[in-house]
Amino acid sequence: MTDLMTRRFPYLPLASTLLLAGLLLSTAASADSAEDAIQYRQSVFHTLAWQFSPMGAMAKGKQDYDATEFQTRAERLALLAQLPWEGFIEGSYDGDTDALSKISTDKTGFEKHAQALMDESQTLSEVAATQDFAKIREQFAATAKACKSCHQQYRAD
Amino acid sequence: MTDLMTRRFPYLPLASTLLLAGLLLSTAASADSAEDAIQYRQSVFHTLAWQFSPMGAMAKGKQDYDATEFQTRAERLALLAQLPWEGFIEGSYDGDTDALSKISTDKTGFEKHAQALMDESQTLSEVAATQDFAKIREQFAATAKACKSCHQQYRAD
Repeated sequence: MTDLMTRRFPYLPLASTLLLAGLLLSTAASADSAEDAIQYRQSVFHTLAWQFSPMGAMAKGKQDYDATEFQTRAERLALLAQLPWEGFIEGSYDGDTDALSKISTDKTGFEKHAQALMDESQTLSEVAATQDFAKIREQFAATAKACKSCHQQYRAD
Repeated sequence: MTDLMTRRFPYLPLASTLLLAGLLLSTAASADSAEDAIQYRQSVFHTLAWQFSPMGAMAKGKQDYDATEFQTRAERLALLAQLPWEGFIEGSYDGDTDALSKISTDKTGFEKHAQALMDESQTLSEVAATQDFAKIREQFAATAKACKSCHQQYRAD
């Protein structure tokens, strides 16, 4: 395995992640770019939910546990969890969105929740590789909790 | 670097990729699942386009080349390119979609195009790591061509 192959999806240090994530962006967006940002982050979460769903079905025993599929989806989730944050820009909390403007006024709290999702899903991808189903279920629940905890505070519905 | 860290985003062999991608699925979907599949693949492509856009701006000299950002987005693109295919299920070529039913009748051709996007974007992520901007621009063009070539044959607009 070449060095290039082993580092295909390196994890950026937190500082770089947040920089790219655009969480620190404070300039106001145009109406167009706000709409684009809303559509982008909703697309990421929709993609994430699609990948998440079969893992939930396996964790709950509604679908047979397939170790390869679970691991692949967990790895996808870990990457997808890094993506939505750059869509949370100033001026994008009105319009066709359930995101609360509290995200803008409580950046530290929101970033903490964003980081929790990135951390829990990363751990899930590592636990998935062990194929220890009891531990996988436990870590899946922790990841789902990270979603829920953020939604409760920063999402309208 | 642990073994777990080096293999966070392993590339599945083609057979597994296609299996997970669901390209070989031939059972008819329910109206609900067809709608879900359409929304899923559109979300993936929307996310992919958002990541693609700043790379295009850099490649065209409309935005300063940032090696770290380009590489990160290229790596994201390589993973995102693996995701949409499981959304192309039977019964999902009517309704709110530009995808042509030719995808269903010409599976071999469509899979070839899907594979081309996965391959070109994977190569882009590897070339991005070299920070050789001339080569990066060349490979970016090859990746964009893979998008366009598929759209010309399998997309209505």
